[in-house]
Amino acid sequence: MQPEIFPVMLVGAGPGAADLLTIRAARAIESADALLYDALTCQEVLDLAPACCLRIQTGKRSGQTSMKQETINRLMLRLARRGLKVVRLKGGDPSVFGRVGEEKAFLAAHGVPAEVVPGITAASAAAAQFGFPLTHRGEARRLLISTATVTDGGLLQGGWASAADPETTLALYMGRDRAAEIAAELIGHGRSAATPAIAVENAGRPHARAISATLGDLATVLEAARPTGPMVLIVGEVASQAEVAALPLPLPRLMRRA
Amino acid sequence: MQPEIFPVMLVGAGPGAADLLTIRAARAIESADALLYDALTCQEVLDLAPACCLRIQTGKRSGQTSMKQETINRLMLRLARRGLKVVRLKGGDPSVFGRVGEEKAFLAAHGVPAEVVPGITAASAAAAQFGFPLTHRGEARRLLISTATVTDGGLLQGGWASAADPETTLALYMGRDRAAEIAAELIGHGRSAATPAIAVENAGRPHARAISATLGDLATVLEAARPTGPMVLIVGEVASQAEVAALPLPLPRLMRRA
Repeated sequence: MQPEIFPVMLVGAGPGAADLLTIRAARAIESADALLYDALTCQEVLDLAPACCLRIQTGKRSGQTSMKQETINRLMLRLARRGLKVVRLKGGDPSVFGRVGEEKAFLAAHGVPAEVVPGITAASAAAAQFGFPLTHRGEARRLLISTATVTDGGLLQGGWASAADPETTLALYMGRDRAAEIAAELIGHGRSAATPAIAVENAGRPHARAISATLGDLATVLEAARPTGPMVLIVGEVASQAEVAALPLPLPRLMRRA
Repeated sequence: MQPEIFPVMLVGAGPGAADLLTIRAARAIESADALLYDALTCQEVLDLAPACCLRIQTGKRSGQTSMKQETINRLMLRLARRGLKVVRLKGGDPSVFGRVGEEKAFLAAHGVPAEVVPGITAASAAAAQFGFPLTHRGEARRLLISTATVTDGGLLQGGWASAADPETTLALYMGRDRAAEIAAELIGHGRSAATPAIAVENAGRPHARAISATLGDLATVLEAARPTGPMVLIVGEVASQAEVAALPLPLPRLMRRA
């Protein structure tokens, strides 16, 4: 007899603090038979899964090798076909740079349904934690979320017109090691060097750190701060409202430039 | 003796389903002495507050009168100064079109701290519910979140360059009654009339409805569908991946155009 097939749950793990999971996400993890997670998932979130749940780490920290996407896809399929309730945990929101389209399409092509549970994306987590908004009346009318790296050459390829718009808040993901290039390109495309910027490392986690700068001195400030965790970079007038003093750890004065 | 002042909690209520609250948001509501909420907050969320909690409705559905922002600000301040734990619930994520900057600044000017609890924004909720991503490798590199209405004239003022970019997913909030104008302006600024679009009414709620169209026929399709609830409009290639058939209620064929 064929086992019953449950939909594979593509679940937003949010920014990493267990209480920033949605209730729906926590319930999915609590009833998982198999949990696929990456190295950035916090232990408190993993601990929500039942003791008998199969735990499989699929990703490593940036720079180290991770499981190939094709391997992850086949693994999810195999586990689902065995009748297991599979939860694929993704940092932040699965719909934003989470490859959910690719994974859903693969599963659908093999007759396995998938469901998405949304999560708090890093920009929202950073804003809430450090007390600045992502939009602000008359000052920041739009929010543009982008990665700082693209596969086929160029930063923010084609998106510069809006990235340079003074009324757009720019949230750049995965740009920790390219902040200098990003700042130079933005200034080159007309965004003022005086634009406030804030780099938030480990947004949403207890040990998060906010590094305040202007677009012009961002590269220098970041070089001194040496961030190593995942980083979201916020560029725009709203960054001037950040309460960097609200940090859980005291921040060297060097890093406070607002 | 002065009462202890607790920080005012500016809490993301998410898209309206109680299980799409974050755990942190649910806990804040569960310990609230005073809850300020708007007409779109669902009963299930309000029911999380203790029986003795003061419940104050601040906003009405669009088109009806709401409490003025200044009145809300003063009310939060007065309640906090009485020593109450005040929770200001905001649909979606407070940092995205939630006036959190204004409210925090007002409270801070009067010596009352505020904390923000992030929430799931409507675009994420719509994407998860109807199975399309907001970004997709090689096809949708950026997500631009904007309102369709601005206070000082013009739609999407100044942001057209990116709104017309074929690799940008556009999520437009508060644009239900201006979809025809928006589509015309986008096409006028060079976005193809064949671009897939999906209008999601009541995103994240059990009675959500997705209306599928192209940018070119959006106005006609929406006129036939007559949406009345809050709507997020998604324009971009990703909309073609939406599973409109996954609706909780059967959808008239008329509305299926993908």
